[in-house]
Amino acid sequence: MMSNGQTDLLAKIAAILTQVKQKRPLVHHITNYVTVNDCANITLALGASPVMASDIAEVEEMVSHAAALVLNIGTLSSRAVAAMVAAGKKANSLGVPVIFDPVGVGATAMRTAAAEQIIREVRLAVIRGNMSEIKVLAGLNTGIKGVDSIADEQGGVQAAQNLARQLGCTVAITGKTDIVVRGDDLCLINNGHPLLTAVTGTGCMATSLIGCCCGATDDYFAGAAAGIAVMGIAGELAQRFLKPEDGIGTFRMRLFDAVFKMTPAIIHEYGRIEYYGRER
Amino acid sequence: MMSNGQTDLLAKIAAILTQVKQKRPLVHHITNYVTVNDCANITLALGASPVMASDIAEVEEMVSHAAALVLNIGTLSSRAVAAMVAAGKKANSLGVPVIFDPVGVGATAMRTAAAEQIIREVRLAVIRGNMSEIKVLAGLNTGIKGVDSIADEQGGVQAAQNLARQLGCTVAITGKTDIVVRGDDLCLINNGHPLLTAVTGTGCMATSLIGCCCGATDDYFAGAAAGIAVMGIAGELAQRFLKPEDGIGTFRMRLFDAVFKMTPAIIHEYGRIEYYGRER
Amino acid sequence: MMSNGQTDLLAKIAAILTQVKQKRPLVHHITNYVTVNDCANITLALGASPVMASDIAEVEEMVSHAAALVLNIGTLSSRAVAAMVAAGKKANSLGVPVIFDPVGVGATAMRTAAAEQIIREVRLAVIRGNMSEIKVLAGLNTGIKGVDSIADEQGGVQAAQNLARQLGCTVAITGKTDIVVRGDDLCLINNGHPLLTAVTGTGCMATSLIGCCCGATDDYFAGAAAGIAVMGIAGELAQRFLKPEDGIGTFRMRLFDAVFKMTPAIIHEYGRIEYYGRER
Repeated sequence: MMSNGQTDLLAKIAAILTQVKQKRPLVHHITNYVTVNDCANITLALGASPVMASDIAEVEEMVSHAAALVLNIGTLSSRAVAAMVAAGKKANSLGVPVIFDPVGVGATAMRTAAAEQIIREVRLAVIRGNMSEIKVLAGLNTGIKGVDSIADEQGGVQAAQNLARQLGCTVAITGKTDIVVRGDDLCLINNGHPLLTAVTGTGCMATSLIGCCCGATDDYFAGAAAGIAVMGIAGELAQRFLKPEDGIGTFRMRLFDAVFKMTPAIIHEYGRIEYYGRER
Repeated sequence: MMSNGQTDLLAKIAAILTQVKQKRPLVHHITNYVTVNDCANITLALGASPVMASDIAEVEEMVSHAAALVLNIGTLSSRAVAAMVAAGKKANSLGVPVIFDPVGVGATAMRTAAAEQIIREVRLAVIRGNMSEIKVLAGLNTGIKGVDSIADEQGGVQAAQNLARQLGCTVAITGKTDIVVRGDDLCLINNGHPLLTAVTGTGCMATSLIGCCCGATDDYFAGAAAGIAVMGIAGELAQRFLKPEDGIGTFRMRLFDAVFKMTPAIIHEYGRIEYYGRER
Repeated sequence: MMSNGQTDLLAKIAAILTQVKQKRPLVHHITNYVTVNDCANITLALGASPVMASDIAEVEEMVSHAAALVLNIGTLSSRAVAAMVAAGKKANSLGVPVIFDPVGVGATAMRTAAAEQIIREVRLAVIRGNMSEIKVLAGLNTGIKGVDSIADEQGGVQAAQNLARQLGCTVAITGKTDIVVRGDDLCLINNGHPLLTAVTGTGCMATSLIGCCCGATDDYFAGAAAGIAVMGIAGELAQRFLKPEDGIGTFRMRLFDAVFKMTPAIIHEYGRIEYYGRER
């Protein structure tokens, strides 16, 4: 059963990649000014179409054209939060999936308050963050011993499951092993490369890729896994192309190359995904 | 006559390239936060000098140092529109050409209102947009059969001519075939590569290049053609350098390489420009 | 004595590089939206950790986590200046070094007023600018003949020394020859490459590198020299890797490669640093 689930999920991810290229979903971003260009380019690289608009006077109209909405609080302002909530509510009313990246939540009271407001007022399809961010959102303030896997020695699965159940959404934690959770569904993704942590915005870009995928499928659990798997595999491929004289600048360029050249066959060949369903 | 016109225009474009490198015009941008870094780098790559300043408290003073002003509404805010109008009026009073990129006009009421305000209050030298944007500005709501060329099967020449005559400026539509119009002057540019559509900001960068060129010549029709031709040829050269393992990240880097290495000889060799003047 | 000073400074710079990689200092930036992505990536490339936060509601809390604070007025707004002053004061109260990049000071009254306010209200560890910017800050309105070096034919050392003494901080001027001054300490850095001036943000990135270095050492004079030397040497190495078909796009990518691969041995091999201490 487990291996079937894994095969199914990998096949779904591969199929989503094809759907993105066919549907070219418009992904509306309200995001930070640090990595916004990277988010636009990674969206195009996958075959989707990005639009960035953040003024409260136009976000509701813009999101009505979109297939997905990405909210990212990397560089926050009170105006941006109001626009995110307005766009998110409109997206909810239209059935457009909302993907939330709670960058730096917990680092300042402002970020925590903004994240809490967004979670309270907007129905989210997917939340993607790092271990610390998801734990803050899950309200886990103490180190809780996780289930049984090495990946969960920090309690990530528990935190993600708590949050996913509280909000009825998919929750993803990216790190050495990525964790994607929805209800009783759990998948662990073992793709990626340490160099990804030496480039700014790889987390934001993963969130954008999730936005692209969720704009092309109704299965947001698979969409989240797809976006994260694509980023991880791209990191591995980018690293493989490095020559001795190359460094992080070349790696960063190769990331975009690899996402652009991603195919279902590459997903099947490189994807290292463990799926644990209800039967676990 | 036609072939003379074409030869003349190509020679003018080549000459403008040299003038940019000699004069190093300062190009003041009020632009979006998505592609602003690319606009600055493409300006430097051509040999001009970029400055970005968008606070209404300083834009009039800044534009007084500039040889051209680029206004781009890619990420809009009410503050930015006010700054654009203030800077534009100051530029008008000083004889500094204003180049306008109406990104996404028609997508939201806010963008349309902003574009209309800028057009009403600022005298523009050049407007550059895609087919849809220029049609919105021209007020063309119906499919009008164009002149006689394949390029105009969508009515682009008609729309550009209408808008150019209404405003007494040069209007450029970039697409598979680029269209540049001023009064009775018309040129079609057949350079470019489909990969340009898979990189964010290539439209914005074309507008910045027009700004550089119009900062170095008084012939804004030729300046617009020059900026667009440089971008298109750069796209072709960038693609030529791609190796099998390269993708969109490498292509994007090569674009800057190609603009940086652009020469009058390359313009003459690669430029595929059809000029139709009054005699047509 | 002079050669000892030079050897000492080079050794200090090499040691700071190691300290950055060991301590991974968090460098809080309040900076412009043009080059902010480059600043984040160059910080990561050196081995430090960037955080960008600019809303006045969170900057004081954010800087309390940081090892250094970088203030850059490249794209200014009244809100940003207030946030910079608030963050700067908090940094002062915590002993966190503040590095200031007065981009474009003198170009508009707004920038000059902002720079003056920051200098008046925040105690700075390092100021880095180009010749013109530092002269504006130093209040030098007339061409003053400099000390005796070719580098100072424009009066840069004099201006930097005046400003450094007025404010009790380190002042750096980057240009063909870089100048770093603190009290009676003076060093001239002869690294770098002309192509650095054809990439936007190399000045901003040098300031970020100074932030990284000053986040890892208490010797801000050496930290400023280290950040500038790393940028200059990276420019030289980036240029060395260029092939005939490469241009400014490739050079820019190679800059990040070179900073990422910088080692104490490379500092010792390539550093061309002249130190003049009290004995001079």
